This record gives sequence, C-alpha cells and structure tokens, in this order.
Amino acid sequence: MLYYLDLFGVAVFAVTGALMAGRKSMDLFGVVVIGLVTALGGGTLRDVILDHHPVSWIAHQASILVAIAAALGTVLWVRMTRPIHDLGLLLADAIGLAVFTVSGTALAMTHQVPTIMAVIMGVMTGVAGGVVRDVLCNQIPLIFRQEIYASACLLGALAYIGLLHLHCPAEWASLLAMAVVFGVRVAAIRWKWTLPRFHLHD
Amino acid sequence: MLYYLDLFGVAVFAVTGALMAGRKSMDLFGVVVIGLVTALGGGTLRDVILDHHPVSWIAHQASILVAIAAALGTVLWVRMTRPIHDLGLLLADAIGLAVFTVSGTALAMTHQVPTIMAVIMGVMTGVAGGVVRDVLCNQIPLIFRQEIYASACLLGALAYIGLLHLHCPAEWASLLAMAVVFGVRVAAIRWKWTLPRFHLHD
Amino acid sequence: MLYYLDLFGVAVFAVTGALMAGRKSMDLFGVVVIGLVTALGGGTLRDVILDHHPVSWIAHQASILVAIAAALGTVLWVRMTRPIHDLGLLLADAIGLAVFTVSGTALAMTHQVPTIMAVIMGVMTGVAGGVVRDVLCNQIPLIFRQEIYASACLLGALAYIGLLHLHCPAEWASLLAMAVVFGVRVAAIRWKWTLPRFHLHD
Repeated sequence: MLYYLDLFGVAVFAVTGALMAGRKSMDLFGVVVIGLVTALGGGTLRDVILDHHPVSWIAHQASILVAIAAALGTVLWVRMTRPIHDLGLLLADAIGLAVFTVSGTALAMTHQVPTIMAVIMGVMTGVAGGVVRDVLCNQIPLIFRQEIYASACLLGALAYIGLLHLHCPAEWASLLAMAVVFGVRVAAIRWKWTLPRFHLHD
Repeated sequence: MLYYLDLFGVAVFAVTGALMAGRKSMDLFGVVVIGLVTALGGGTLRDVILDHHPVSWIAHQASILVAIAAALGTVLWVRMTRPIHDLGLLLADAIGLAVFTVSGTALAMTHQVPTIMAVIMGVMTGVAGGVVRDVLCNQIPLIFRQEIYASACLLGALAYIGLLHLHCPAEWASLLAMAVVFGVRVAAIRWKWTLPRFHLHD
Repeated sequence: MLYYLDLFGVAVFAVTGALMAGRKSMDLFGVVVIGLVTALGGGTLRDVILDHHPVSWIAHQASILVAIAAALGTVLWVRMTRPIHDLGLLLADAIGLAVFTVSGTALAMTHQVPTIMAVIMGVMTGVAGGVVRDVLCNQIPLIFRQEIYASACLLGALAYIGLLHLHCPAEWASLLAMAVVFGVRVAAIRWKWTLPRFHLHD
C-alpha cells in the first residue's frame, strides 16, 4: 500500500509542478521538467546526501513514468475542461506530503543517522521538490512564506520516530505519522495557521 | 576525436555563460563561475546522481582550464572587438549540445541503467548547465520557453540507443546521434520550431 | 581550536542567512532553512562532489544545532534590541569565510585531487552557501557583483597550498592562510576593492 501511496504522491506533486509551469507559460518540455523536479527532487536530494544509490527514481522506473504522465495529463485536463479544483489539489498535495515525509524519515533511519538528521531528511524529502520548482520558476519558495506546510512534516517525522521508540510496529507508526502530517496541514489550510514572520527593513 | 569535441563543447558553453554574466553586469569572478557552471554543471549533476566518481572535471583537469580560459577570453574578445556573432554562437552551441547529449547517454549506459534513465541522463547532461546558469542569473531557464532545444537532445539520445540496439558500431552511433541533435537544433533555429505552450491564468 | 572556529563560522553564516530571510519577510521556518543552507551549503556541495560521506553536518551534529540556534537567535536579537551592527557582522563573516576556505582546501587535499581542484573546493566551501542563500531569496548572488569576496578565498587557498609545499607545518599554514583571507577581505571592505565588471548590452 505504501508503494501505491508513494506513486500517488509523485503524481500529485507532478501536477502542482505542471500547474506552476503553466502559470509561467512554459512549453511542454518545461512542464514535464518542472513536474519531474517537483515530484522527484526531494527524494533525489535526500539520496545524494545520504549516499543512497541508486537514487529512488533510477531504482523504480514507475515514478518517472507516473510523473511524466501526470504532468502531461494536467495540460490535457486543463485544456479540455477547466481549471483544476483548488481544494481537491490541496488535499491531494497534503497526502503526498504525508507519504514523502514518512518514507524519507524511514529511509534515513535505515542509514543509522542521528534522530535530528532523520527528521531533517524527512522534511527535506517532503518539501525540497517544491522549493526547486519555485526556484526554477523564479520565485521565492512558497513554503518560506505561506501557511504552515513544512512544520506539518516536522511534527510527522517526530511522531514517526517517537512511535518507533515506543515500540509501535513500523506499519502503524507510518500510518499514524502520515495522519499527523495530513491533519496538521489540512487544519493549517482550513484555519490559515501561519508561523510568525520575520520582517527586516534596510 | 570525441575528447576534442567534448572540450569544444565545454568552451562553447562557457562562452554562453560568460555572455549571460555580462548581460547581468557581473564582475570577472562571476563571469568565470557562470562559465564554469554552464560548461560543467550538466555533467556534474549526472555524475553525482549516477554515483560516478571522480566527477568528470575532477578526473580531467583540461575541462576546468578550457572553461576558465573561454570565459575570460569572451570578456577580452567583446572588449577588444565587438559583440559576438549570434549565429556563429548558436551553431557552436548546437555542436556542444550534440556532444554532451551523446556522451551523457553513453556514460549512463555503462552504469547499466534502464533505457529511459539513459535518455534522461543524456538530456540532463546537455541542458542542465544552461538551466543552472539561468537560475544563478535570476531568470526562468530559457529552454523551458524558447524554440526547440531539449527535444533535440531527446531525439539524439533515442537515436543513439536505437542504433546500438541495431548493432551499429558505437563510433558510428555516436556520430549519427550527434548529427540528429545538431540537425534538429539548427532546423529549429532556422524555422523557429517551438513546442506547444501551456498558458494558465490565475 | 579549528573545531571551534568552524562552529563560529557556521553561526555567523547562519546569521547572514537569517538576516536575508528577514529582508524577504519569511516565516520562522524560512529563516531556519535559509540559515542552515547558508551555513552548511558550501560544505555539503563539496562533500557530495568529492564523494566524502557522511557529509560534514551528518557527521557532526553540532553544526546543525549551532546553525538553527544562530538563525532563531538572530530573530530574537533583532526583535528585542535593534538592527545588527553591520561592521561587526562583516568582520565576523570574514572570519567564517577564512575558516571555511582553509578547511575546504584541506579536506580536498586529503582526497588527493590536483591542486587546481583543491583551490576550487576551498573557494566553493567558502562561498557556495551564500550563493544558494541568494538564489533561494530570488536575487542574483551578491558575490558575483559586490566588492572582492571570493578572490580573498582564492588567495587564501593558494597560500595554504603554497605553504604546505614549502614544508610549513599544517597548523601554521592554516593560520597564515586564514589571515590572508581575512586580511584581503577586510581590506576590500575598507577600501572598496572591486574586480573589473563585464557589461554587455543587448
């Protein structure tokens, strides 16, 4: 089931990438690249830093194919029907975020890194793809400014590690931690939770 | 001959980097860095993702020296004479693109990755340096919006792999695939071939 | 002592990252990420390119904790008192730059890379974190345009390697090379030394 959830996350992240590429009027190649980078960038960065080879999308071809199909499918969908339903996309994105965070944390723990590193790797897996997407589209990454996003990953990664320390079975820990990420993220969208901002004027 | 073609590609890509740095009024250090990143960025990203060490420019010092010389030579040339001839540069860039794409595809195949990964690595080797150049110069990468560029790499990488499957000798496959990249790119410039764009309005 | 100097460099770089994040009105998560990336980005890039694993901040947890504390401490400091003293920050930054350059050069030399690569790795360790900081904040990296910065690293890395070739003990070579970086940087700030610029108009 985790495998299919992961592919679902890949597809959703590729859709957010394709939509951003459309807002910048990119061509189909740009749409596919931004889709791929958004979907696979976080996991690639994690694997390269952890020296975990082959990196995930080389080991599992399905992710590449799913991401390309999702990016091109987004273009077709928007052209044939109308703009994608925002709330549906936000909820789907929250599921992808939950899966990526927990799988990134779990992978880091198999490398026996200290707890704080496993948390950082989990957050990075969840959010780095979106950061690279925004950089390639020439804007300050959304997650540094919008309502709570990465903090949901942080809580989920901590929950996962805490549950394992309490001898919770790995499958249950995964599901509960994903529920934490998803729940916090959805609550943040619903009630517009934000972190305090730091304003500095020259 | 491939070795010299590769150095030619490094030099040409460094020139395009230096010209972009000049458009942003960077200092000589910026010119050299943007030149190096444009010339060596694609290969470095490929090597790091494939875990192929030492990365190409550490293994072959000549690339570094050629890229630095080409970047600084561009400044001298522009100051002493006049702006570089655009068409000449575009043609030279197409040769560099052809060489990088085929050498990237070939290197990936020595790592026994699946075909689709070898194609992606070939395209990445050809275009990623230019993407990083544009990001460092704070603009949306040209190749996501201009006439056909990465698609030429895609066709060339597919041609290379297809020819090898047909038992074509590797040298001939390389030359023919490079001719595909070069030919498609030149035709795209001449007749302004573009991919369909995806426009999305908020 | 080098160990504590390195942590001092991490803290100072994290402060410059946090201040830049504040200028972009980021939230606390953005402040911490930009602080971490500025402080640890150069070393991470160096380690990944040299295939030196585990990367420095996974091997030494202290850097992470110091960088996070420095980034959050910057927010507190600015809120409770007033803007940070610019000259003090510039001098502290010059110390961090000196330490990072020399430690990066020294690490590269333990990998038996050619001299020119060791110099490049030293400069990269010193400046790449700031480059990524500026890219994430959506502006052209300062060091490609402002007064002499990377050139100070270049001279320091060359001094370090030259002194080792003259059989100077490693500790003395480190200290002298750091003094070179610091001295050149401070002189560049004081007398506004700049490199020639390359202006190109379309």
